[in-house]
Amino acid sequence: MRTLTVELGTRSYPIHIGSSLLNDPDLYRPHVRGSQVMIVTNETVAPLYLEPVRQALDGLHVREVILPDGEVYKTLEVWNRIFDALLAERFARDCTLIALGGGVIGDMTGFAAACYQRGVDFIQVPTTLLAQVDSSVGGKTGLNHPAGKNMIGAFHQPRAVIADTDTLGTLPQRELSAGLAEVLKYGFIRDAEFLDWLECHMTGLMSRDPDTLAHAIQRSCEVKAQIVAEDEFESGSRALLNLGHTFGHAIETGVGYGEWLHGEAVGAGICLAAALSARLGWLTEAEVERTHRLIAGAGLPTGRPADLAPERMLELMAVDKKVLAGQLRLVLLKQLGEAVVTSDFDRDALAHVLA
Amino acid sequence: MRTLTVELGTRSYPIHIGSSLLNDPDLYRPHVRGSQVMIVTNETVAPLYLEPVRQALDGLHVREVILPDGEVYKTLEVWNRIFDALLAERFARDCTLIALGGGVIGDMTGFAAACYQRGVDFIQVPTTLLAQVDSSVGGKTGLNHPAGKNMIGAFHQPRAVIADTDTLGTLPQRELSAGLAEVLKYGFIRDAEFLDWLECHMTGLMSRDPDTLAHAIQRSCEVKAQIVAEDEFESGSRALLNLGHTFGHAIETGVGYGEWLHGEAVGAGICLAAALSARLGWLTEAEVERTHRLIAGAGLPTGRPADLAPERMLELMAVDKKVLAGQLRLVLLKQLGEAVVTSDFDRDALAHVLA
Repeated sequence: MRTLTVELGTRSYPIHIGSSLLNDPDLYRPHVRGSQVMIVTNETVAPLYLEPVRQALDGLHVREVILPDGEVYKTLEVWNRIFDALLAERFARDCTLIALGGGVIGDMTGFAAACYQRGVDFIQVPTTLLAQVDSSVGGKTGLNHPAGKNMIGAFHQPRAVIADTDTLGTLPQRELSAGLAEVLKYGFIRDAEFLDWLECHMTGLMSRDPDTLAHAIQRSCEVKAQIVAEDEFESGSRALLNLGHTFGHAIETGVGYGEWLHGEAVGAGICLAAALSARLGWLTEAEVERTHRLIAGAGLPTGRPADLAPERMLELMAVDKKVLAGQLRLVLLKQLGEAVVTSDFDRDALAHVLA
Repeated sequence: MRTLTVELGTRSYPIHIGSSLLNDPDLYRPHVRGSQVMIVTNETVAPLYLEPVRQALDGLHVREVILPDGEVYKTLEVWNRIFDALLAERFARDCTLIALGGGVIGDMTGFAAACYQRGVDFIQVPTTLLAQVDSSVGGKTGLNHPAGKNMIGAFHQPRAVIADTDTLGTLPQRELSAGLAEVLKYGFIRDAEFLDWLECHMTGLMSRDPDTLAHAIQRSCEVKAQIVAEDEFESGSRALLNLGHTFGHAIETGVGYGEWLHGEAVGAGICLAAALSARLGWLTEAEVERTHRLIAGAGLPTGRPADLAPERMLELMAVDKKVLAGQLRLVLLKQLGEAVVTSDFDRDALAHVLA
């Protein structure tokens, strides 16, 4: 087992990465204050992993909520079912929520923990690569609104993250690729050496070699933990983690939540960010091509959906959270391995890249 | 104008109390970061005070959401209308929300500010006595769930509180009384001298003498600000502010939200807390009678609704947020002017007091 710590003072927490962790009582117990535990999971994950997690919590008062599976259910109405369950069981302020699933479950459960009785504890047990390297680390929680993704939410740090690599064995190939988009992102924004390593080991990653995956998850979490520790509430460098995301959110909203996976949209978004960076003279055409090769090598799309018009994408990008005082800001690449947040590009260059 | 400060480090903020403040641009401007301002108010308050507040914000990009009036609308569905409005107008992270109204508007607006794009600024402009002395100070925000009051929420401090005493002129007498319940509460929990002063000045308060009201508001905010500064997130002494509230919430839920005003339920709750304190030998019968006189003198009920069975009240109290590890904790009175949080009473004593 590999363990690293997200350093956030009194809100610091461990990330455990490895095999056979999901059913290890010792990883949960230090982080459960009271006796009431609510496992929040979905219909796909429950048959696979609910029972081993329940067993690890043997002796506690454990209940569960099983939500429908998919980004399309990351809504206020479905979120409310978690409160229905907590209140039906009279859960108190010292209860603990456990998010067992991918990013959608993690975001909704974390946000419910942030708001139930104005804040209770939660533990992340991510079962997808995307959640293990991204959404379960850093305390961003939230929901979608028909007018935009993750528009309603809170910063609420988990007490612990338990990333069991065995769960990746049951992951559909498309979701593995989606997770690799975020893994690649860490290389692009801050670690050229990791990007080189990923280029060499993409075959191993795509064929799910356990050690190769474990290293990729660890390095991804290290980069993310470092950036989150620098800037917990996203007033500065944390925004770099949004590389590809403003493009990606527009794609996800434009095609309808759930049509493209988040990671697929981010993969395409990274390519679009690279293309715009090249127009600004920051990247060479060869670097843009290398970006496309890396993204395509992970089985990801490298451009916007054919049926999403550039004008509509521009419109959707304008409501992104990264818009400040009416000015669209994007994460772009100074070079491969160094991202910056900037609004220093003209609308025409952006429109050209989208076309 | 009287100004005091809630001392919370980087989250400190001023409370301004006085006449003709609502339309004073200088009180808003230092707390508005960007140019986008969303005023959230209700159908009762809008015709009276929306225009003067708009005028004070002249030159900024101001929009408004007008919600239905009443505790019964403090729901997830109505709350979502604030996000609909913010997103329809593409409000960015540097926007400011203004809560113009009573406690329901303040709680819902504050909670929307806590969650919109994971947190934006807001200013409280309370227009009821209850909101001026209680709900707009201290950063507790939230919503009701059918199974319990304020079960979904967040701690989110306002940037400023602007309490214009002129707004109390249009307040129905029943709401004035409801506000006085919280004013009296501050005397009961921590300030015997203030309680004496209130006893002497109840006639002036009930007839809305401006100077008497202004003093009562100031002293109430001072006590609350002191307690909040001691314990922002309610891990200790802040729980004292819940005197009468566990009983009160059970009454509000039991009769249906909106039937009894919050302050009315709290007034009755303080009498019930005093009665239980007497059974524990902490208060004399004379002190219980004085408590009843004070509460009745403010035009408030002194006991549970006749049609709410004691058994049902016990049941509702068991789901209160103050239940810790299955143990019901109540705020009771060691003496008039000194409250304590305790679970050191037996179920029979409580049942007897409710009967």
